[in-house]
Amino acid sequence: MNLLLLQPEDFREDGTVHLTGRRAAHAREVLRAQEGSSLRVGRRDGQVGRATVLANDVDGLHLDICLESPPPPRAGVTLILAIPRPKALKKVLPAVASLGVDRVFLVNAARVEKSYFDSHVLRPESVETLFGLGLEQARDTVAPELHLRPRFRPFVEDELPGRLDGVPLRLLPHPTAEQPLQALPQRPWGPAALAIGPEGGWVPFEVDLLSRQGFLPVSLGPRILRVEVAVPLLLGQLELLRCG
Amino acid sequence: MNLLLLQPEDFREDGTVHLTGRRAAHAREVLRAQEGSSLRVGRRDGQVGRATVLANDVDGLHLDICLESPPPPRAGVTLILAIPRPKALKKVLPAVASLGVDRVFLVNAARVEKSYFDSHVLRPESVETLFGLGLEQARDTVAPELHLRPRFRPFVEDELPGRLDGVPLRLLPHPTAEQPLQALPQRPWGPAALAIGPEGGWVPFEVDLLSRQGFLPVSLGPRILRVEVAVPLLLGQLELLRCG
Repeated sequence: MNLLLLQPEDFREDGTVHLTGRRAAHAREVLRAQEGSSLRVGRRDGQVGRATVLANDVDGLHLDICLESPPPPRAGVTLILAIPRPKALKKVLPAVASLGVDRVFLVNAARVEKSYFDSHVLRPESVETLFGLGLEQARDTVAPELHLRPRFRPFVEDELPGRLDGVPLRLLPHPTAEQPLQALPQRPWGPAALAIGPEGGWVPFEVDLLSRQGFLPVSLGPRILRVEVAVPLLLGQLELLRCG
Repeated sequence: MNLLLLQPEDFREDGTVHLTGRRAAHAREVLRAQEGSSLRVGRRDGQVGRATVLANDVDGLHLDICLESPPPPRAGVTLILAIPRPKALKKVLPAVASLGVDRVFLVNAARVEKSYFDSHVLRPESVETLFGLGLEQARDTVAPELHLRPRFRPFVEDELPGRLDGVPLRLLPHPTAEQPLQALPQRPWGPAALAIGPEGGWVPFEVDLLSRQGFLPVSLGPRILRVEVAVPLLLGQLELLRCG
């Protein structure tokens, strides 16, 4: 935890915060907070700054808050992800939050199990916890938007065009694509979209539908990667592609 | 598991393999192997190819093996990693094996706990299992070399120069570096080295020692990433840097 993430309801009327539970324990035990200590904090969806410990008693930590800087810039990335199994989702959600991904669409695909949409990992309180871990890690306060889309075709055909209005760079990593991602020319920074298939890959019908929406199939080479490895790798490459 | 990894001792004199345990169970339950099925296999440190199921009985699977292709090319990367906590190591070791990293040096640093070197995760049988998961994932047969170096300074000053002979690109991601990695010019493919510090970062003494060995400090921006997210991100960027 590199930042204590404060929720709007943590703030009292006088602007101070009374911290209890997991965050207070972390501040005391790991950050060794005591009266007078200064801690890095951020307000969910707001600014980041410092907290000064006014009092440290059995009830928790009483903090004076000074928020002064914007959170780190967004990645400028829309991620369309064939819904991973719950165990992988638990790793991917904190990762995409820490990487500053703007929006995540978890979509159905021929080679995923539709039951994944019913996973308890996707309950709102679980998502907030997993995103929170990523935000605290990366010193950010803004989580990705998360959208579940159990119907692939209507999502791609009807919703995606509007969602990706003004997003020129759209990549579709695919094992049988001819063009390696490395061969793409660098370009000036701009918003981008990435459609990452399930482990078995998108089926031809899905590739076709995404291609019609301007997604360019690119090859990542012969290695098949776990989704929690492929996502940061591709986001890193996307960042480098957009610095021409 | 995208490839059944066979150990040299799995092979009988006639070149066939009798598979039992976890791999046989996976072949039957997930890959639905039965007599006549063809399975993707690789021989640890050797070639990859196909296996034909000759018999499927209570003892396991009897396989005829045809190895015909080399495993995927190596990443050409030496990774120097401040030893992560055991929980993170369990994620990082399969990841670096799946990414084809050539060599990993787990080193001590001022901001890591030296006790991590005693973790059971680093016992040889545990390392082989974790690397094996990564190889089966990426359809590879060759794991990274793994070296533990509990003494940072003698490693960097005495051993590293010889180890990195002929490795021109040496990067040191560091939060306070001025040059962003994105600003580096692309270059022709060649071996590279990456020194990734602990979550708290390398201390100035460590940065200084690595800089003297030609490591260029580069910034990754304001986000602090977990090691299991930073490693694939940086390896992806390194791949893109070396395609000029």
